Amino acid sequence: MLTFNLNPDLSVPLYSQLYSAIRNALERGEITAGERLPSKRELASHLKISVVTVENAYSQLCAEGYIHSKPGSGFYAEKVQSRLSSENVTPPCIDDEPAGESYRYDFGTNRADTDFFPFSSWAKLSREVLSSQSEELLNSCSPFGTRELREQIAAYLKSFRGMNVHPNQIVVGAGSEYLTGLIIQLLGRETVYGIENPGYSKIQRIFDRNCGGIVPIPMDENGADISRVFSEADVFHITPSHHFPLGTVMPVSRRQEILGMVYSEKNKYIIEDDYDSEFRFSGRPVPTMQSMDTGGRVIYINTFTKTLAPSMRISYMVLPPQLVGEYRRKLGFYACTVPVFEQFTLAEFIRQGFFDRHISRMKKLYRRKRDAFLSIAENWKSADISGEDSGLHFLIHIKNGMGEQQLVKTAQEQGIRLHGLSEYYWADRNSAPDSHIVIGYSGMTENEIKEGAELAGKVWHL
Amino acid sequence: MLTFNLNPDLSVPLYSQLYSAIRNALERGEITAGERLPSKRELASHLKISVVTVENAYSQLCAEGYIHSKPGSGFYAEKVQSRLSSENVTPPCIDDEPAGESYRYDFGTNRADTDFFPFSSWAKLSREVLSSQSEELLNSCSPFGTRELREQIAAYLKSFRGMNVHPNQIVVGAGSEYLTGLIIQLLGRETVYGIENPGYSKIQRIFDRNCGGIVPIPMDENGADISRVFSEADVFHITPSHHFPLGTVMPVSRRQEILGMVYSEKNKYIIEDDYDSEFRFSGRPVPTMQSMDTGGRVIYINTFTKTLAPSMRISYMVLPPQLVGEYRRKLGFYACTVPVFEQFTLAEFIRQGFFDRHISRMKKLYRRKRDAFLSIAENWKSADISGEDSGLHFLIHIKNGMGEQQLVKTAQEQGIRLHGLSEYYWADRNSAPDSHIVIGYSGMTENEIKEGAELAGKVWHL
Repeated sequence: MLTFNLNPDLSVPLYSQLYSAIRNALERGEITAGERLPSKRELASHLKISVVTVENAYSQLCAEGYIHSKPGSGFYAEKVQSRLSSENVTPPCIDDEPAGESYRYDFGTNRADTDFFPFSSWAKLSREVLSSQSEELLNSCSPFGTRELREQIAAYLKSFRGMNVHPNQIVVGAGSEYLTGLIIQLLGRETVYGIENPGYSKIQRIFDRNCGGIVPIPMDENGADISRVFSEADVFHITPSHHFPLGTVMPVSRRQEILGMVYSEKNKYIIEDDYDSEFRFSGRPVPTMQSMDTGGRVIYINTFTKTLAPSMRISYMVLPPQLVGEYRRKLGFYACTVPVFEQFTLAEFIRQGFFDRHISRMKKLYRRKRDAFLSIAENWKSADISGEDSGLHFLIHIKNGMGEQQLVKTAQEQGIRLHGLSEYYWADRNSAPDSHIVIGYSGMTENEIKEGAELAGKVWHL
Repeated sequence: MLTFNLNPDLSVPLYSQLYSAIRNALERGEITAGERLPSKRELASHLKISVVTVENAYSQLCAEGYIHSKPGSGFYAEKVQSRLSSENVTPPCIDDEPAGESYRYDFGTNRADTDFFPFSSWAKLSREVLSSQSEELLNSCSPFGTRELREQIAAYLKSFRGMNVHPNQIVVGAGSEYLTGLIIQLLGRETVYGIENPGYSKIQRIFDRNCGGIVPIPMDENGADISRVFSEADVFHITPSHHFPLGTVMPVSRRQEILGMVYSEKNKYIIEDDYDSEFRFSGRPVPTMQSMDTGGRVIYINTFTKTLAPSMRISYMVLPPQLVGEYRRKLGFYACTVPVFEQFTLAEFIRQGFFDRHISRMKKLYRRKRDAFLSIAENWKSADISGEDSGLHFLIHIKNGMGEQQLVKTAQEQGIRLHGLSEYYWADRNSAPDSHIVIGYSGMTENEIKEGAELAGKVWHL
């Protein structure tokens, strides 16, 4: 008869101890396949435990397939291989991701200033949303996002961007990267995409991983020059409001030309990425292509990650009315990826005017930061600045005879991080104009920016 | 000279009125391409407005490409086509999504009981997290998720599922659907996936949209029978803890057999979807395949959507240590899709024991609901119930001579919604055994369940 040491003083229940003991005996081959186990009553009296305890252990072993019962006959062992018991194995050791280097002056472009985030307003609204304890907060919302948030986004787009958008055209999702993935699924995975070159490297990588092919769109002084690759791609991802990293704003004639080309063929589309249009420092915001599009060929995409905080993964896209039905049919089964709590909080944040006020404050803050750099750079003799009217970065052409690599390296040696323009060319890198540096200033204080700029001016002998 | 009616009493600034007036004149062809505009000074004195106002209007028109300046010569009109001004267009009207039908008794399987969600604990923790106002809350976290949440998940998996997992193996994401998309990108988009048939229809649709091909895995009394399609697919998505909708628990011998097969070839993997393993009503939880996997071939995936609330889009996967490096290289550029606020709140929710207690309460609640149905069904003469030991659904084989369609339809006529088993076959639908009904009971109260079950028994003459 099977004999095991069971200890009623342990925190592990007796049935569970018995289960483990029998399982181990099976795995060690002490009980062999086909062998009949003692009846529940026999084993209980042998081990001086209750029949219920044995019953629980046996039924767990049955559930996991270690033994099976034959009605009227008893319990029989299954064939099992021995295995490492995971319970006493130490977890694998996996190194942390290597941390990025840290610089005294970081003119990298990927940072945001979060000091001005209106924490107390956000916290107050969150509290109000949570204290409503409404059932709506717990159940899943429409795959497009909550009605409340989509209405607020539509109202915001109307007053801020002059766009006439129905809330049913809007899809809310956890970041532009995620929404881009949905667009690829919507338009078909064999579709070929034109991507701006130079451009934001993540965009290129997302398309490269997921679509039928990518084609670089060359840039000129009017922005993306789609005419040169029009026949090679089906859909064009562009940033007409403010190109990254060149800073180009696409003039209306180019926008009209592109729409005209797209209308001339079936099934060609534009993805208009309006990612930092909120931060235009002079005049009114430039109108979107979405608002010029009478043919239903522009998918507009924007994010709250840049305007609120990088930790907040809320983006949205505006589908042309013509694609809404197809989206519902093809992708309507995907649940919305943004927590409903956050959507309600953000909707109130916009509705009560906090978002507008936050953008105005950030615009002033970022303009001061930009001006801090410019106040130093205006004394530089051989440097041309461009693209400084909007967005959170601009371009400097340094004409001191140094090449891009040398500019970046000499700055780096002094603790200044900055990127050369050629780093943003994902194709045809040699075509990048030499000696151009991309300056992002959003992540530093005004003083740090001035110090960093002064130091760069010294290093580069400007 | 250009003459416009500008009104200083309007809320629209004068420069903006002038900008619109000139733009309209260009679009209507009243100013033609190449025409020289009046100088700023001339126009200002003609319209009796300040030079700065004209300057602002001109520079906005330049930025948008309606006009351009020639240094020393003045401003010239660009060629533009007329366009509909979007500002006065009414937004397109798009119908709402058609709402699903509503039933008096809904035994659909896709609902959750949110009445027991511990709102006040969650709200309290959220408040604490927000009031820390830590900078960490605003900056983006690791692409894998916050360290805090991954540590809590690892600790939970150790104590609840006996799994030894390093936090660096865990990837947090906005829902299992999203994570499944990442797995497809990780393993390559040409990879062919085996998907359980019958199974959860969303899973099949996600793979179908995104991967190189799908192959149905037939099911037998031991769960997924991979041996029959092993050569046709590279990766197998299975639910060994509790199959949906059959309710099968895969015995250990089958698990070992599958691991053995997968180890015998390079680059074959298992995706173990453990989606409702928390709700096992008798005995201990069945061990996971992940914990039996010594070869690094099991990707484990689970979600908090089922255990907390459908509105909360937090899921996670556990990569085999062997795939962590590749994941970082290939997909490490994707930002984590779950807001950092939510991740901190959930980490505290687990750490302080709220999650454990919530699961225990829900398990009791769901068991009572299940028992409510069973208390009625035990009096039915010609009905076999299976798969009722875990998860939030079970299967009934009704042997009253009615076919599946007739069972569903007669119930529907009385306001009872339930699904026939064949609805979950996405391939080879005719192979579904007839007269099987899937019962989900999570979304109704005990009384409703009893009433619904009684009514069904009457309708079906049981």
